[in-house]
Amino acid sequence: MPVVSAGVVATRGPVVVIGSGLIGTSVGLALSTAGVPVYLWDPSPVALALASDIGAGQRLPSSPDDGPLGLAPELVVVAAPPDVCAPVISSCLRAFPEAVVTDVASVKEPIVAELMGEGGHSDAELSRYVSSHPMAGRARSGAAHADADLFVGRPWVIVPTPSSSPSAVLTVRGLAADVGAVPVELDSQEHDQAVALVSHVPQLVSSLLAARLASATPEALGLAGQGLRDTTRIAASDPGLWTSIIAGNAGRVGEILRALAVDLGELVEGLEAGGIREDGSIAPGVAGAVAKVMAAGNRGVERIPGKHGEAPRRWGTLEVLVPDEPGELGRLFSEMGSMGVNIEDLALEHSAGQPVGLARLMVDPGRVREAETELQRRGWRVASAALK
Amino acid sequence: MPVVSAGVVATRGPVVVIGSGLIGTSVGLALSTAGVPVYLWDPSPVALALASDIGAGQRLPSSPDDGPLGLAPELVVVAAPPDVCAPVISSCLRAFPEAVVTDVASVKEPIVAELMGEGGHSDAELSRYVSSHPMAGRARSGAAHADADLFVGRPWVIVPTPSSSPSAVLTVRGLAADVGAVPVELDSQEHDQAVALVSHVPQLVSSLLAARLASATPEALGLAGQGLRDTTRIAASDPGLWTSIIAGNAGRVGEILRALAVDLGELVEGLEAGGIREDGSIAPGVAGAVAKVMAAGNRGVERIPGKHGEAPRRWGTLEVLVPDEPGELGRLFSEMGSMGVNIEDLALEHSAGQPVGLARLMVDPGRVREAETELQRRGWRVASAALK
Repeated sequence: MPVVSAGVVATRGPVVVIGSGLIGTSVGLALSTAGVPVYLWDPSPVALALASDIGAGQRLPSSPDDGPLGLAPELVVVAAPPDVCAPVISSCLRAFPEAVVTDVASVKEPIVAELMGEGGHSDAELSRYVSSHPMAGRARSGAAHADADLFVGRPWVIVPTPSSSPSAVLTVRGLAADVGAVPVELDSQEHDQAVALVSHVPQLVSSLLAARLASATPEALGLAGQGLRDTTRIAASDPGLWTSIIAGNAGRVGEILRALAVDLGELVEGLEAGGIREDGSIAPGVAGAVAKVMAAGNRGVERIPGKHGEAPRRWGTLEVLVPDEPGELGRLFSEMGSMGVNIEDLALEHSAGQPVGLARLMVDPGRVREAETELQRRGWRVASAALK
Repeated sequence: MPVVSAGVVATRGPVVVIGSGLIGTSVGLALSTAGVPVYLWDPSPVALALASDIGAGQRLPSSPDDGPLGLAPELVVVAAPPDVCAPVISSCLRAFPEAVVTDVASVKEPIVAELMGEGGHSDAELSRYVSSHPMAGRARSGAAHADADLFVGRPWVIVPTPSSSPSAVLTVRGLAADVGAVPVELDSQEHDQAVALVSHVPQLVSSLLAARLASATPEALGLAGQGLRDTTRIAASDPGLWTSIIAGNAGRVGEILRALAVDLGELVEGLEAGGIREDGSIAPGVAGAVAKVMAAGNRGVERIPGKHGEAPRRWGTLEVLVPDEPGELGRLFSEMGSMGVNIEDLALEHSAGQPVGLARLMVDPGRVREAETELQRRGWRVASAALK
């Protein structure tokens, strides 16, 4: 199932990729795999050599800062850290006078503003620039973790400026499609507001929550369940990278966090009203405050779309006990497959001290009862089956 | 692989279970399955009938509030909502003068304080009471979702009071072991502090975060990735149940949230210092504030133990592209099994608009390279392989 095949790509190339980190190298790998000629540049000779060695493209003879290179790329992808992106884009617009130039930074407004605002570019130059942001990443950065399939199925946000020409926008959309991503067009404000809400604020809130565990006893941590693990997973992310991302979106992130702080303040105030009264009933202040936060959370989480970009859908759930041995999960999944029941999503739960896991399978609600009966007939322990 | 087998249980019975909700009915089912005689009571005749009909035990002839019942149970399990638990425990200590009495509420201090403090019980009566809390649950409540295997492998916190007799503690530990749980002994303060940190605060923070999505545009929500989904999953929990739980632990939860609010306030202040300066560099205020929160989050999340109660362990990761068709995941897992490589944990990622998923498999780091090579030989697309 090759995602990118030579000969069917929109990008003709050559493509110049500036920056041999995770994203730049992955773009180079994906395009090279598809047969597009790629040239790489990175101020770090080590990163550049690594990216080139693993097949992401060949090295540019010299830095684009040194002026025209006698190369006429169709497209230049600037994959530099957000805080140094704008000057690199400027250099590239000058060094490659025929090329469309895009960048892949996680924050768009400061870069677009710096580029449009400095007055250093003609309209013709600016017409060749289209900003963009592939919504893909890894826990670890660097060329060593690059991957030709990094963008497969992920949204790639295309952010035209008021000066971007339609053909330049098409070129960047073509790049996104060629690496397997789904192009989504937003303006820079919409983009930065969106990522503040769905990415930057969740990152910081997860970190704030995980930070509270510093004072936890080992006994308390021993009671940790899936809820704590899920809410704090992304708190393991890289502080350096995130500092640069959040700085570029500080205003919007701060605004959302201020609103969250207001809700938090109300909740804390409600909790200070006391919990259980002497007659055993719940104090109205705390009840109201907790119920309000929980209900608002219910409404918010319901708005997150399901997979494949569909509207949220209720799956049926089968919970099956699985011995913690090689092959057992495979046997379960094979048997589901042989029944023709697709597993839409799944989670594995392991518990302290037990050689058994609980596999929670999300399936078509119309197939739950049949699958339950059939699994039990085949000797599986079905812990629960629910239609939604 | 029966977890509970008749004849090897510590509990002799009969056991009386007061409350036919999710937890009470599950206890009844687990003990009945093991051959222990169980009697059920619930103020709701419907809940009681349902629990009895699905095999959780037989009905008590009348409420324990009506006085002695001519029944001499070994153990009484009070599975009532936390805010009405204490009076029910009191009734049971009187109605069953030989029985050990425990409860399963999510918060311990208010219940223990109410019971010990009212002066209505003799030392002999109080010696028969041991509080407890099984760390198990489901997204949905009620007898209909009960499950004999609900407690398998989960911690069951045993909370003796200063008056509890050693033999009463042993009886409750036996109950926990009989239903497949792992007994963990804590005092009521340790318990309530622990669950505030690992359960109650994560719940409220997830809800506070999800509540921010009320104002999100569909375009923003379309960019949602696994990070947002993980951090907000438990925000879908039941407000009614959680109001009663948080109310019983309001002081401790409030204290942790106040500390979190201080960190949040510092972060917001840092963000207000401005993000990117005119020269393109990151403002020191925001850099320091973000890095501080992220680093503290890193330290916190590292303290969460791994599965099976082990110290945290680094697994290797294989990311494999899987066509979204019945049987494909099964085939992948079967092949992993046939290589003898156990899957320690896994996550499935689906992306908008693509008929392909990414399975992230956590495996023994010593087997990663071998598994990668072998999977590729068998025609799988391995998107990445990492030793840690």
